[in-house]
Amino acid sequence: MSVRLDLKHLSSFVGKNEYTAIAPQIRQAHEALHSGNCVGNDFIGWVNLPTDYDKEEFSRIKAAAEKIKSDTDVFIVIGIGGSYLGSRAAIEFLNSQNYNSLKKNTPDIYFTGNSISSTALSEILQLCEGRDVSINMISKSGTTTEPAIAFRVLRKLLEEKYGKVEARKRIYCTTDKARGTLKQLATKEGYETFVIPDDVGGRYSVLTAVGLLPIAVSGADIDALMSGAAKAQKELNNSDLDSNACYQYVAARNLLYRKGKDIEVLVSYEPCYTMMCEWWKQLFGESEGKDNKGLFPASVVFSTDLHSMGQYIQDGRRSLFETVVLFDKAKTDLFIETDPENVDGLNFLQGKSMAYINEKAFEGTVLAHADGGVPSVVLHAPDFSEETLGYLIYFFEKACAISGSLLGVNPFNQPGVESYKKNMFALLGKPGYESEKGALEARLKN
Amino acid sequence: MSVRLDLKHLSSFVGKNEYTAIAPQIRQAHEALHSGNCVGNDFIGWVNLPTDYDKEEFSRIKAAAEKIKSDTDVFIVIGIGGSYLGSRAAIEFLNSQNYNSLKKNTPDIYFTGNSISSTALSEILQLCEGRDVSINMISKSGTTTEPAIAFRVLRKLLEEKYGKVEARKRIYCTTDKARGTLKQLATKEGYETFVIPDDVGGRYSVLTAVGLLPIAVSGADIDALMSGAAKAQKELNNSDLDSNACYQYVAARNLLYRKGKDIEVLVSYEPCYTMMCEWWKQLFGESEGKDNKGLFPASVVFSTDLHSMGQYIQDGRRSLFETVVLFDKAKTDLFIETDPENVDGLNFLQGKSMAYINEKAFEGTVLAHADGGVPSVVLHAPDFSEETLGYLIYFFEKACAISGSLLGVNPFNQPGVESYKKNMFALLGKPGYESEKGALEARLKN
Repeated sequence: MSVRLDLKHLSSFVGKNEYTAIAPQIRQAHEALHSGNCVGNDFIGWVNLPTDYDKEEFSRIKAAAEKIKSDTDVFIVIGIGGSYLGSRAAIEFLNSQNYNSLKKNTPDIYFTGNSISSTALSEILQLCEGRDVSINMISKSGTTTEPAIAFRVLRKLLEEKYGKVEARKRIYCTTDKARGTLKQLATKEGYETFVIPDDVGGRYSVLTAVGLLPIAVSGADIDALMSGAAKAQKELNNSDLDSNACYQYVAARNLLYRKGKDIEVLVSYEPCYTMMCEWWKQLFGESEGKDNKGLFPASVVFSTDLHSMGQYIQDGRRSLFETVVLFDKAKTDLFIETDPENVDGLNFLQGKSMAYINEKAFEGTVLAHADGGVPSVVLHAPDFSEETLGYLIYFFEKACAISGSLLGVNPFNQPGVESYKKNMFALLGKPGYESEKGALEARLKN
Repeated sequence: MSVRLDLKHLSSFVGKNEYTAIAPQIRQAHEALHSGNCVGNDFIGWVNLPTDYDKEEFSRIKAAAEKIKSDTDVFIVIGIGGSYLGSRAAIEFLNSQNYNSLKKNTPDIYFTGNSISSTALSEILQLCEGRDVSINMISKSGTTTEPAIAFRVLRKLLEEKYGKVEARKRIYCTTDKARGTLKQLATKEGYETFVIPDDVGGRYSVLTAVGLLPIAVSGADIDALMSGAAKAQKELNNSDLDSNACYQYVAARNLLYRKGKDIEVLVSYEPCYTMMCEWWKQLFGESEGKDNKGLFPASVVFSTDLHSMGQYIQDGRRSLFETVVLFDKAKTDLFIETDPENVDGLNFLQGKSMAYINEKAFEGTVLAHADGGVPSVVLHAPDFSEETLGYLIYFFEKACAISGSLLGVNPFNQPGVESYKKNMFALLGKPGYESEKGALEARLKN
């Protein structure tokens, strides 16, 4: 098992009898998911994806990544939501939040088309100046406002910079296999295209071409990523609560929720995990936050945020629990050297590694928080490899699907995301939305 | 008034009678704060700080920033919590999250000593390779674990790179005016020092030398920053709820909290505001999260997170409200050009600016969320100038102090932050903590 769960720091909050009581619900959800009889079963393509994917396309992704690495200084990924968070999270997890600033032999990678900030898009144009650029437009339809605006601007930039013919070789589209305006445009222009499968929703799509191309461009081994996910697919495919770490996590978080712990704080002790927390927040927030239900997903990086949100977690409203993701092996370690003057009083740590001190910070914190009334679920992962990342991604995707089922929601839809869009289109005067405009404007004036 | 509050989108959630009822409590808190009779009154130096600060030191900060700009490629700021979040937030607000990657004539600025990640600290060492470096060590005592470890490593780096004499000219210490080991070391070595005032807590310290030196190094006009704060100090110094936007915000959030809206989500539509949200989370979380009370502070950047946390906000548990910070004038604007093919269907936006579209996204969202049962407080600020930033900082600091008073807590202490530290020191075998070690280790084994 690549990921180990430690429920020790829950023991004073959740009794063994409670796990026994919830186990049948998990078994039922497991069977519904694997038999394809669950709610939302048109979006469960992610379940077998780690073994059942298009190998020809996978090879094309690797070839495209090699070409991009050879002819590109700045790779711009255009996408929002699930077409943005997963690949950025993976690249920062495997490399660093400072990926673009550090010396490397792979392209800088910037993400855009994920907001309507003109300032943010202008900066992307500055970052492209005088450098060789390729772009990856990721959109099922091609008409989502944020990425469509960015793609208009960047496609024009490439055509002006390289001419239409060369620009075509620098534009990669990840989109629907057959329908949609982006697919039509790509076919007409001859852009290389990759597929967003019909049965995989955005927040579950990081192991499709959506995530794989940008991740491969960063130099990561996407074969290892898929093989880690395949290992999880195999190991987590049994409904036995005693042996399935993923389902233990599902049990713990649902039991805590049912007794009023309705905020889940995802905790890491490594800054490179920051965007993984954001990916997790979309996965769980969008899957569970519906019908006036759902755990509110939040995140912190410790020890940084022990000096920020730490006070609240220790002693604020007692409505939260923590899920801590730990890694047995640091990417790089440093050792505390002795200082003859010992100005800072740190000589008692002489010879100790920072990874060891970080581990003691976790141990001190988990006990302090338990004393303060905050239970912790602790996930131990071995390292920061592609294989571990693939395992973790599948682990959380499956936990989310089973959790949503326990909560009684469809974990694969997101009807609430349409509400703001409809209003925005009406206010912008988009054809087809005329009838709503007046009423909305009147409400804004009151 | 530099900041305008719009409570329209609260009107169906909070009645006028409720504001009337809470006004006397706000008046009382205002008077207690300004007469110096409030709880925690040994930490209210921030109240008059924008006008009552050390002008000689302020000049030295500007001179130091000029020297650093002239002889430094990479400026490393070492600090945690309040010695980290404020200056980073200000630099990203005034410039960009991509500050280090964008072309500029000021040094790169990296923050470290804010975690125990060996990977993160190793990256800082890589980023310093072959470049001219200066460092700013920020710590009241000099013994806080995270910054102390980083300072050991970086001080050694500078001494090896430049020799002891030149290194002394590249190390700046922001610390206690008289006591503590860092002050002693700085005096002995002749490092230039700046003062963390005794009566200003970490999370209220961004307008002291703690924030001002790094902010000035980024090229910002710190005179304008202080003058914006001074304007807020003057305008917000009256207890009349009808005219004081800061106190209207206090009233709204406390009324919402008392009726069960116990998660406050700070919302921006500009990515450069992301770290300001983190600064705000420390300010409010650490001030209010105590005695089992307090609003849980969370944050999002829209429209990015409308495709992530948006579903939860629209339709999840109805325990939250939003505080939206809007800016009337974008830093840079872009206009939608026409496309003869109109592949993406965006031609109906032809000639419109992205800032306009972003505004309509806000309007569409605020109405959709109200319809979903989520009230919004909306703050309008004029622009992204230093003056506006100073105003906003003071606005939130004062709102936090008065809010904490209404909640019935001491908004200026953080007793819960010590809990993890005590355990960590015991587990690490720090002299003086021996007696706890065995018991803690036993709990970890069970």
